[in-house]
Amino acid sequence: MKIFLAQQNYHIGNFESNTAKIIAAIQEAKAQGGDLIVFSEMSVCGYPARDFVEFKDFIDKCYESIDLIKQHADTIGVFVGSPARNPVREGKDLFNAAFFLYEGKVQAEIHKTLLPTYDVFDEYRYFEPSYDWNIVEFKGKKLAVTICEDIWNLGDNPLYRICPMDKLMEQQPDVMINLSASPFDYTHDEDRKSVIKANVLKYRIPMFYCNAVGSQTEIVFDGASLIFDKDANLCKALPMFAEALECVELNDDGTIDAAIVEPASRVPDKELNPTALEEHLNIAQVHDALIMGIQDYFKKMGFTKAILGSSGGIDSAVVLALACEALGAENVRAVLMPSPYSTSHSVDDAVALSKNLNNAYDIVRIDDVYESFLQTLEPIFHGLPFSLAEENIQSRSRGNLLMAIANKFGYILLNTSNKSELATGYGTLYGDMAGGLGVLGDCYKLQVYALANYINRNREIIPAHIITKAPSAELRPNQKDSDSLPDYSVLDKILYQYIEMRHGPAEIKAQGFDAALVDRTLKMVNNNEYKRNQFCPIIRVSPKAFGVGRRVPIVGKYLN
Amino acid sequence: MKIFLAQQNYHIGNFESNTAKIIAAIQEAKAQGGDLIVFSEMSVCGYPARDFVEFKDFIDKCYESIDLIKQHADTIGVFVGSPARNPVREGKDLFNAAFFLYEGKVQAEIHKTLLPTYDVFDEYRYFEPSYDWNIVEFKGKKLAVTICEDIWNLGDNPLYRICPMDKLMEQQPDVMINLSASPFDYTHDEDRKSVIKANVLKYRIPMFYCNAVGSQTEIVFDGASLIFDKDANLCKALPMFAEALECVELNDDGTIDAAIVEPASRVPDKELNPTALEEHLNIAQVHDALIMGIQDYFKKMGFTKAILGSSGGIDSAVVLALACEALGAENVRAVLMPSPYSTSHSVDDAVALSKNLNNAYDIVRIDDVYESFLQTLEPIFHGLPFSLAEENIQSRSRGNLLMAIANKFGYILLNTSNKSELATGYGTLYGDMAGGLGVLGDCYKLQVYALANYINRNREIIPAHIITKAPSAELRPNQKDSDSLPDYSVLDKILYQYIEMRHGPAEIKAQGFDAALVDRTLKMVNNNEYKRNQFCPIIRVSPKAFGVGRRVPIVGKYLN
Repeated sequence: MKIFLAQQNYHIGNFESNTAKIIAAIQEAKAQGGDLIVFSEMSVCGYPARDFVEFKDFIDKCYESIDLIKQHADTIGVFVGSPARNPVREGKDLFNAAFFLYEGKVQAEIHKTLLPTYDVFDEYRYFEPSYDWNIVEFKGKKLAVTICEDIWNLGDNPLYRICPMDKLMEQQPDVMINLSASPFDYTHDEDRKSVIKANVLKYRIPMFYCNAVGSQTEIVFDGASLIFDKDANLCKALPMFAEALECVELNDDGTIDAAIVEPASRVPDKELNPTALEEHLNIAQVHDALIMGIQDYFKKMGFTKAILGSSGGIDSAVVLALACEALGAENVRAVLMPSPYSTSHSVDDAVALSKNLNNAYDIVRIDDVYESFLQTLEPIFHGLPFSLAEENIQSRSRGNLLMAIANKFGYILLNTSNKSELATGYGTLYGDMAGGLGVLGDCYKLQVYALANYINRNREIIPAHIITKAPSAELRPNQKDSDSLPDYSVLDKILYQYIEMRHGPAEIKAQGFDAALVDRTLKMVNNNEYKRNQFCPIIRVSPKAFGVGRRVPIVGKYLN
Repeated sequence: MKIFLAQQNYHIGNFESNTAKIIAAIQEAKAQGGDLIVFSEMSVCGYPARDFVEFKDFIDKCYESIDLIKQHADTIGVFVGSPARNPVREGKDLFNAAFFLYEGKVQAEIHKTLLPTYDVFDEYRYFEPSYDWNIVEFKGKKLAVTICEDIWNLGDNPLYRICPMDKLMEQQPDVMINLSASPFDYTHDEDRKSVIKANVLKYRIPMFYCNAVGSQTEIVFDGASLIFDKDANLCKALPMFAEALECVELNDDGTIDAAIVEPASRVPDKELNPTALEEHLNIAQVHDALIMGIQDYFKKMGFTKAILGSSGGIDSAVVLALACEALGAENVRAVLMPSPYSTSHSVDDAVALSKNLNNAYDIVRIDDVYESFLQTLEPIFHGLPFSLAEENIQSRSRGNLLMAIANKFGYILLNTSNKSELATGYGTLYGDMAGGLGVLGDCYKLQVYALANYINRNREIIPAHIITKAPSAELRPNQKDSDSLPDYSVLDKILYQYIEMRHGPAEIKAQGFDAALVDRTLKMVNNNEYKRNQFCPIIRVSPKAFGVGRRVPIVGKYLN
């Protein structure tokens, strides 16, 4: 039996383009003599469609797509993902479903049992969990079909009381098929392989795992679909961060006609929950995820041109380099906006960077605008001493200038704040926190340095001085980040323990960090929830990013 | 049996103050000879604590609070709400629980079965649903204890497949007790009464319903706790928007020693889902909810002083009046910021308003700042014609001035955008969309007019001209809202059908609205998700507010 996996990049709610993509893959698989083709979770509407699924009209359009697709599922079996209406009165009105299409008809509907409702996932918000389980018979084979999370209920502390594969095994299936929309983070690639392998080792039948690819605002789906034979040999690994259509021949004895990519014995059993920041240096993957995150945001929003403030610091340098790679240097404009407190190397470094990248740049001094604000406010400020207010005026003047140029010429402002700054509130709302997309908002400062070095892996794109000089906001004379913040080499580790590991103050202090510093850091994080609440979407590359996957009360009194 | 309801205003994560409040009520109830006292859902930690409950430290503190409280539950029975750890390996690690405390011990733990996971609710994100049900015996009575949503699974299309009260009835309870944290919206007061009454009519035993009160960032809990006797007579109705401690004597025959507030026959059976915007004119409740929303935001954040831009328009006038009522006029500062395009009546009207309210105000012309931006940008704009960019520069100059004064003197900027503007994107990011709290973000323009009239119910606070003149942003000569937007009297009704009723384009057109106008409106709403995504928290007064309860993809292609 010739089985295809179609790893595709869908656009949420764009039924026309999604359906066309799905039909094109079916036709290609048919042309190659395929028996069966598997698409990813929610392929007809894109994942996550969120509250769009609460609209009858949206669900109607999903069914219309299924109707179109099934006409092409004549001589080939097709598994495609879609919401499905729940005909039962009790319970939520929808299921997260896989439709099995064959001979021009819907032959079966499989419903997801385990509905991830944590981090960025909200599935129980919309869907009723499945409570009965049936294999699908096709050309003499019994297929155990599950959807994403359904195969993740393993380990010492399973999240759910039911294991759908255990239920399906009662009907002696020959093969497992899983439709996923499982997002990237820098721990996920190895985790995913381990979990799929664990299923194969447990159930002793082959696994066809098809994952979505492409970025949906903040969530990056990395693809990396996999095929394992019954002995847990990896037979096919689809690429990360790219669409692909691949097939293998499944033999009746459960073996697969394909060169083994990685034998069962060599699949590493990685620690699923690394406990220290330093263990995460899949910097090439992070880089590729950010590139796809920028590209898909622009492509799917219908934008082409990006603008950003280029300060001569490392954050804006990395964003500028990534943007030039993602969108083409000809589509990226840097604006250098020195103030009275800027050092001369800020401009020199930023100019050198743009010359290396070959992108357009402007130098727009903010002195006059800043002075004009101070004069306008003088009757109210009455000569009060320089304070945070004046620092913020400079930052917001820059935000205003960037937005004005963006509005005038149709650029989208890329934000350059990093995760350490967002965590501690070291940034100005409506100033350097402005922008449409947060490129580095899920990368701690230490990871930004790693990205800079990675970007320079073949030649010096980011001038060395940008990487080596001490970070500074340059909003008052001789200012350094270290005046206000702990050293990043300690700060980032404490932040990682609190944010990614969700450890409380006692647990973090027990690791040997200075107690006062831990308390001060956690207080900063919790005090600045109100700022992050107004921040733009952040391309998610870690297991716990600020934004939709981290929901913290603003009006709270906890550790602050 | 003398039973108290303690309707209290908790502060999320502030264990010290919550515990002190709970113990004080227990002591008062004991002093009055109470047998039993009921607190609201999640009383020890506040609701919703969101991802704080993922911290072991946070849950430890909940248990420490229970330990403190139980020492006071010696001669009185106490039901108090808290997360509880799930001792079973499978499933989520926490329950949403009611602890029954008596004789200094935890006597029983009741777990919530129905976990609301829709709109602003995320309970399945954190909690395992209960799967066994037991009554609590106390002084010869059998108590059927449920938590909030547990009693809401009624009607033609129940959200859940289980009805916990049906399960509990198998053990013949004598009385129902419900601990709630059920938020306000302008339909909710009557809905709640209807649902509780429906439970009493179905099960024929008395109901003691204790709801939380107080605002938690965007969500307003209105209290309005209720006691019904077994014949569905309303015997006690606690106030809306205020703390209260009330008791009744429950007799052995299920009757209650209290004057009947509303006999069973007179409880109106209101339509639970009104279908038109005009039906919602509980304007006094909306007003009171906004006042509590402002007050609690400031009190719980530790702020006292508010600032806002006063444009002479109706939105800022209503916010200014509400802020003066909530915080005291002496704590509110208005800033009038005319531009070259402002009309003279804008300043005159805003001055008259502040004189009526007796709050401090400044007049700060933005001409110089605006001019300075234009000059700074001239080398880039090269004399291109006036466009949206120049409009936004004015709006952002105001945002920058307001934030500068706020930063200098410790004010919090109140935002004045209304729901019609937020829906259509008729506002400037980092300009008039700036602020810490969106006071009117859940009120359509028509509702803002209703609020203005309500504020003027006893005397003219908001000058008549502010109410009667045509709305304008005054960012270009002779600009009117109606140049860009449909008339609010039609627009608001279409928005209501789309946002509150979740009707799609065909359903809205079928109601007789102009088809092109419906398409244009829905496109505006979906195109502007990226702006709302960066907006501050909005005080929620409707059943569907922008913000945490409405989750829509930014990068989507649906109706836009």
